[in-house]
Amino acid sequence: MADAKTTAKPADGRVRAVIDAVSPNVDGGRFPIARVTGEAVIVRADCFTDGHDVLRVMLRHRRDGERTWREVEMAPTGNDRWLGEFVAGAAGRYRYTVCAWVDHFLSWRAEFARREDPADILVASRVGAHLAQEAAERAKGADRTALRRQAKMLESEDDIASLRVAALDESFKALAMRYPDRSMQTDWPVELPLRVDRVRARFSSWYELFPRSASAEPGRHGTLRDCEARLPYVAELGFDVLYLPPIHPIGRVRRKGPNNALIAGPDDVGSPWAIGSDEGGHKSVHPALGTLDDFRSLVARAGEHGAEIALDIAFQCAPDHPYVKEHPDWFRWRPDGSVQYAENPPKKYQDIYPFNFECDDWRGLWKELRSVFAFWIGEGVRIFRVDNPHTKAFPFWEWVIGDLSREYPDLIFLAEAFTRPKVMHRLAKLGFNQSYTYFAWRNTREELTEYLTEVTQGPGREYFRPNAWPNTPDILTEALQFGGRPVFMSRLVLAATLCANYGIYGPAYELAESAARDVGGEEYLDSEKYQLRHWDLDSPDSLRGLVALVNRIRRENPALQSDWNLRFFDTDNEQLICYAKATPDGENVIVVVVNLDPHHVHSGWIDLDLKAIGVEEGSTFQMHDLITGGRFLWHGARGFVMLDPQRVPAHVFRVRRRVRREQDFDYFL
Amino acid sequence: MADAKTTAKPADGRVRAVIDAVSPNVDGGRFPIARVTGEAVIVRADCFTDGHDVLRVMLRHRRDGERTWREVEMAPTGNDRWLGEFVAGAAGRYRYTVCAWVDHFLSWRAEFARREDPADILVASRVGAHLAQEAAERAKGADRTALRRQAKMLESEDDIASLRVAALDESFKALAMRYPDRSMQTDWPVELPLRVDRVRARFSSWYELFPRSASAEPGRHGTLRDCEARLPYVAELGFDVLYLPPIHPIGRVRRKGPNNALIAGPDDVGSPWAIGSDEGGHKSVHPALGTLDDFRSLVARAGEHGAEIALDIAFQCAPDHPYVKEHPDWFRWRPDGSVQYAENPPKKYQDIYPFNFECDDWRGLWKELRSVFAFWIGEGVRIFRVDNPHTKAFPFWEWVIGDLSREYPDLIFLAEAFTRPKVMHRLAKLGFNQSYTYFAWRNTREELTEYLTEVTQGPGREYFRPNAWPNTPDILTEALQFGGRPVFMSRLVLAATLCANYGIYGPAYELAESAARDVGGEEYLDSEKYQLRHWDLDSPDSLRGLVALVNRIRRENPALQSDWNLRFFDTDNEQLICYAKATPDGENVIVVVVNLDPHHVHSGWIDLDLKAIGVEEGSTFQMHDLITGGRFLWHGARGFVMLDPQRVPAHVFRVRRRVRREQDFDYFL
Repeated sequence: MADAKTTAKPADGRVRAVIDAVSPNVDGGRFPIARVTGEAVIVRADCFTDGHDVLRVMLRHRRDGERTWREVEMAPTGNDRWLGEFVAGAAGRYRYTVCAWVDHFLSWRAEFARREDPADILVASRVGAHLAQEAAERAKGADRTALRRQAKMLESEDDIASLRVAALDESFKALAMRYPDRSMQTDWPVELPLRVDRVRARFSSWYELFPRSASAEPGRHGTLRDCEARLPYVAELGFDVLYLPPIHPIGRVRRKGPNNALIAGPDDVGSPWAIGSDEGGHKSVHPALGTLDDFRSLVARAGEHGAEIALDIAFQCAPDHPYVKEHPDWFRWRPDGSVQYAENPPKKYQDIYPFNFECDDWRGLWKELRSVFAFWIGEGVRIFRVDNPHTKAFPFWEWVIGDLSREYPDLIFLAEAFTRPKVMHRLAKLGFNQSYTYFAWRNTREELTEYLTEVTQGPGREYFRPNAWPNTPDILTEALQFGGRPVFMSRLVLAATLCANYGIYGPAYELAESAARDVGGEEYLDSEKYQLRHWDLDSPDSLRGLVALVNRIRRENPALQSDWNLRFFDTDNEQLICYAKATPDGENVIVVVVNLDPHHVHSGWIDLDLKAIGVEEGSTFQMHDLITGGRFLWHGARGFVMLDPQRVPAHVFRVRRRVRREQDFDYFL
Repeated sequence: MADAKTTAKPADGRVRAVIDAVSPNVDGGRFPIARVTGEAVIVRADCFTDGHDVLRVMLRHRRDGERTWREVEMAPTGNDRWLGEFVAGAAGRYRYTVCAWVDHFLSWRAEFARREDPADILVASRVGAHLAQEAAERAKGADRTALRRQAKMLESEDDIASLRVAALDESFKALAMRYPDRSMQTDWPVELPLRVDRVRARFSSWYELFPRSASAEPGRHGTLRDCEARLPYVAELGFDVLYLPPIHPIGRVRRKGPNNALIAGPDDVGSPWAIGSDEGGHKSVHPALGTLDDFRSLVARAGEHGAEIALDIAFQCAPDHPYVKEHPDWFRWRPDGSVQYAENPPKKYQDIYPFNFECDDWRGLWKELRSVFAFWIGEGVRIFRVDNPHTKAFPFWEWVIGDLSREYPDLIFLAEAFTRPKVMHRLAKLGFNQSYTYFAWRNTREELTEYLTEVTQGPGREYFRPNAWPNTPDILTEALQFGGRPVFMSRLVLAATLCANYGIYGPAYELAESAARDVGGEEYLDSEKYQLRHWDLDSPDSLRGLVALVNRIRRENPALQSDWNLRFFDTDNEQLICYAKATPDGENVIVVVVNLDPHHVHSGWIDLDLKAIGVEEGSTFQMHDLITGGRFLWHGARGFVMLDPQRVPAHVFRVRRRVRREQDFDYFL
């Protein structure tokens, strides 16, 4: 190292413990992993050293702002992999990392335990005395006294049997381990970030409705008060998030007419996503919907019904939005004095101007957009569905979500980004707590199995929380258009049991609205996006009973409130899909079977993984269908099912392992 | 951002391109990837941006010390993944990274190409004029003039057809792309390291022999001069690395006797790995072997025979090594005044003291050990086989190899670490250019397939280069002990064709030495490690002819000089293993079939992957056995083979796709 040619400057070459491959991590720690309060954070790392010495490895974690690490001892699990865990605390930002050191005491003890030669044992005892003395110097009080006593004994005793007992004494080990020499500790160089969300980020049931269609009388523009009157209905259905499309004034310039007509009539209401007019912008309530007071009342009353109001935040402007006049520099003007309207190919939004995130005043733009969230947070909103976040600059999202969440760790942002996989994942990494998915377009057993396995078992699960929607105001899938009631039932059960977060756009969904505007398209005919609709909630054909039942099953069965526990089982009929979810303690186990064919009765054999559902080989167990109430006794891994799509195309079984036998009764003696 | 609560400080929020998952990388860039001169470095990255703008992505690379990056344009390969490549240059250290930007010119052009409305085209042309003008300002000379002309045309022309042609003109595109606006460029934050080795790091054939057994007369201690006389033999066998166990003075204290006896007789020669005596240490030549001049002569003569001398560097000392007296602080002394001898469980080295890498003078120790390498480098050695590197502190290896290689980029270090997988991989990451493997203990088709697939296709291949040895002085496997000549033949072919780097310990190997010291052990009986041996090189049973042939096949067939190209094929007989290697251009294709059962003739069907061997479906091709010279015409993917282990238990086919047909001859008209 005195060599002039030597360029590398090692720190302390005696730091011999190696740490590698600390997981989980997202992009090496560039982004946080996401958990909810109460979830286990299980951390693994490769740890080893040269030679045959023994390591000690610690998992360290702390909340942002805390000075001191909490430490958990990690344990080896084979192949030089170590594991430790802690429980995610209150919502907020945390850090975790790993440290390790070559432990001279444990190395000595392991070597000592192998020694047989008395002379060797004597020498090794003297070495141990030295280590005990060193530990004593790091200790205080009674521990110091005890370690000194141990050192003296190992130093002076000559009886080999006594030395062996003393050296390997478990309480001596525990004592010495409390005072390790960590001067040559290796620290994993990255303090990995962890974002803890509140539990609703993982388990939520969303209901979307257009307030303007919530009026009791056909033809009258609905209001937030009407929405309030709709709360008991939403509560009866069992949803805990009531999500409203934008409630702001709607632009009049280039307003669209029914069915996306480029020219609107004088009474046409326009698209709620064409935000802003001389009546106000993103911080105003559309006068036709009511007042800010009405909104406050709605938020309060929703809470009484067990539901939170989620607002739709769409960062874009109608041409007559006040921003366009006040901040023309936030838009990209073309040589002819126009602004290129927004597009999300193949969709064209002629009534909408996008912001120019490359404008010189990007800081001012960011600050103003942040203030929109802050405004509604001030009105009690904690859940935001963000419209097309993938068409806004990514750095903005990381900044605005991170910044707001530091102050309000209970915020939940749902990303409405139906786009390419890596873009969707990026948004989740940047801070979105939930993400729309491709679920709507996954229909066959293979498609559903592959996609849900990827989403729940793939590396993206560390940060990407799926929210499954069978329909949205933009998405009336072909399956829903042509499958009739059975498909509305099966897709509801699939969304609600495959994903802990799911939602429907109603009342179109429970009323099985299936009329599309164009052949081959996914737009609703007479879509609420452009006109008022009136819905007959009391229609005898309504699926509201099934929706309410499914949501009750979700609430009562914690297995359905997580995603990582999803496991698919084989069936011998490709129209039958079968999967299970179980709680980690195995107490609550749900097995779902769905007939994917809306037109025919299907039957077949299911191959259960008994271990995955906590059933002992050879035992009899009860499959309790929580939909119909039927109870079936099954024995072994194969079970037979038959499902008529016209009745209910799904079983949602709770597995009940306790089956009464003759021994349980008095007459068995 | 003016908000006092705002803590995040975004750089420039207008930097919209995203780069992620740049590969290859080893632990995020903590360690270099390894290539050899002339190999392609293929780099991939996820790159995308918000919205629908078009990116440009550049792969940048430079040699350490160079100021300027070389740039290669990357191209999208689907799913937002981009690819670029460059060729690894001369041996040395390099860096590579990726940068990307949202390209306003290409974005405009892509949008323009979709436009149909004449009014739109007119406005878009004016926008393009502005972009062309901006590019002109970044350009100079003729390019600037041309861009200005283009700008003027797009600004002033009103004919829609002409505008369309001009806007989409390919030469305009090429010109504008030369002067992009990179002010909002995203740089991948890591400059990933690349280590380029010389080609022999990837393709080498090693022969290990004990110089002291190289004497022509039985009983006389062999010398380096004898070794020199052995060079023609080694050259005839076709090896290009001649590796010698330590050639230093051997300790007399606790010297071992034949067969690892704890007490040596007065004439016993001891283990060459018990290095050092009053005759010298790691920089001395054992007097019984000769002088430093003899060594220099050997190095020079070896070169004439196309072989390099590789030295064994074992950092450990006999108790009478000069270091022990000169630097007692480099060893760990026990209370009884002894030093605990070295162990590599279950092996015990009572004649060897390990260094204490935790000693206070670790810097002095490191420097001295470095000087050992430097000394032999000074004597012309460029290849080192390092003994048990996993029992020395890892930071030392990273420093010493990195430091020496900066000055001598042609150095090759082979790690003799038969230990746990992650430890072996760590050593390779730290800089060892080649690594011993578990090959010796992989016998069945499944074992070989799984292990070689992992080694050649797994993520570790970016830095871990396997060197396959069927035997070593420490390892006489059970297979070799009990399989007879057929196993020596089959293991030779396997090692030499599965791995581009391989070696044998001879003459024990070619003479099929199979006598073990203990039942259930792997030590040779009368091992050369502790005594002189005399070998009858001219034995009629010698496999020297096969060894020479196999090495010639390796030299003549570049497909066998790489590892990443290894592909296994199915066979319907588990005693037959089949695999292929092909050059990237498909010119040289080798298919190997080995009968793994030394006791029985086996036959069976091979399922070739025709695409992998470059054969067209339905064509007839010739399988030319380079071992026997036999030529077989095969048609289609299935081929039949039969192998008698007593003759040669392997086919090494060169696939010759050109099979003459009637059309090739005059009489076909």
